[in-house]
Amino acid sequence: MTAPHSRTLDRDTVLCVSLAARPSNIGTRFHNYLYNELGLNYVYKAFAPADIVDAVAGIRGLPIRGAAVSMPYKESVIDLIDVMEPSAAAIESVNTIVNDGGVLRAYNTDYQAVADLLAASSFDRTAPVAVAGSGGMAKAVVAALRDTEFTDVTIVARNHAAGGALAAKYGFAYVPELGDARPATLVNSTPIGMAGGPAADSLPFDDAVVEAANGCLDVVALPPDTPLVRAMRARGLETISGDAVIAGQAAAQFALYTGVTPTPDQVREASEYSRS
Amino acid sequence: MTAPHSRTLDRDTVLCVSLAARPSNIGTRFHNYLYNELGLNYVYKAFAPADIVDAVAGIRGLPIRGAAVSMPYKESVIDLIDVMEPSAAAIESVNTIVNDGGVLRAYNTDYQAVADLLAASSFDRTAPVAVAGSGGMAKAVVAALRDTEFTDVTIVARNHAAGGALAAKYGFAYVPELGDARPATLVNSTPIGMAGGPAADSLPFDDAVVEAANGCLDVVALPPDTPLVRAMRARGLETISGDAVIAGQAAAQFALYTGVTPTPDQVREASEYSRS
Repeated sequence: MTAPHSRTLDRDTVLCVSLAARPSNIGTRFHNYLYNELGLNYVYKAFAPADIVDAVAGIRGLPIRGAAVSMPYKESVIDLIDVMEPSAAAIESVNTIVNDGGVLRAYNTDYQAVADLLAASSFDRTAPVAVAGSGGMAKAVVAALRDTEFTDVTIVARNHAAGGALAAKYGFAYVPELGDARPATLVNSTPIGMAGGPAADSLPFDDAVVEAANGCLDVVALPPDTPLVRAMRARGLETISGDAVIAGQAAAQFALYTGVTPTPDQVREASEYSRS
Repeated sequence: MTAPHSRTLDRDTVLCVSLAARPSNIGTRFHNYLYNELGLNYVYKAFAPADIVDAVAGIRGLPIRGAAVSMPYKESVIDLIDVMEPSAAAIESVNTIVNDGGVLRAYNTDYQAVADLLAASSFDRTAPVAVAGSGGMAKAVVAALRDTEFTDVTIVARNHAAGGALAAKYGFAYVPELGDARPATLVNSTPIGMAGGPAADSLPFDDAVVEAANGCLDVVALPPDTPLVRAMRARGLETISGDAVIAGQAAAQFALYTGVTPTPDQVREASEYSRS
């Protein structure tokens, strides 16, 4: 797949941005690819803000149509926006701002994408689910599990305070270690399995737990075929991998910014391009 | 000349913008053309700000490298920037903001371009010069005349208050009408001769004045061959036309934003493309 050329900009070109301490190229490539494919007069640019308050003022003042929000701004922008839409309110975390004629609306499309993928999955809603991790992505995953009516969820995390608080907030269980439990569905919301990280070749659960499970959701997108996902696929089990989460959240952002919902094929192509 | 495709954006792409109530496409086309020609990882986008204070906050906060400033913001941004460089201080009017590692520096490249063109001209520094107009561009022209050591300048404007104040500020004369005077050099800093305006086919001075003059500077760029410029060229006289002013000011902005000074050929090509 060759890089599409960007459109020639003119005074009517609409700008969307991302705000992150350490921007990747993934969003920039995903959105600009689809703008070109769909012939939309938009352009997307990643920023590492010098000052988040001034950056959000710039969204209002220039104006900018939309902004993806990443670490470490997902909570700190809450006081700067006008309307918390349900997806952001559900986890008190913002990953998308839409400037709706001067009104800044906040969304969380990570939560939305995970909820959509879980809703479309065949995972048994009443069987035990274990979630590894207690950070920002764990919040999105646990809220999505609750809102798609999974009933038997246990958070597994070394951080007692964060794990316990997350479980309490959503009415689920918390354990520091799974012990002898053998949950049907495994969810990874830690960086374990991420390329270049200290645990790139590791599983987020013990081998025996992985061998006993019936399916998994893994939020790691680089690479999407983590050791956990590979172990499940080798046994022909249902997996939701991080590329689906990241593509789903980016497609939801794209639709919020442009009003255009890309087809699944277009999202897949843009997602492949964004990681190439 | 075909439109060059923009570079594919990535996270390192530097953004420059323009801030104007009614943006044209000229700056967008000029700067993006040269970014592409010179292989610079920059992109330029015009904005009609929803709020100038928030827009300038966005320059700091996102951050944005540079901003062209047009009507009606050339004076109102003065309180929002950090350093008035000499070109902006000379006329208390800003047409360019450069974000220099968080310090916003203000310049006026209209003034700078006119001063450069006057300095390179053969116009007689001691012969009488008449300047039609008393608006923002007249300020830049009159300051540039003074700073390039023209000594005998008369401002000709119907607006007594503005014309008188401008003349007093720079130590020149003011008259509402030229009468019998026959200045050697004529300067137009009004919209007379601008395509689509109410005086597109008019001269900014009486026929007899134009016939007696030895050269002119006209700030009207659309079209650059105004009736005044055509009348002078028909007699083989030296003219500085508005396309040279606009190209000079844009090239100066370009150099401030990028640190790269385009060649005269590159400026001419970009300028032609910007108006095509």
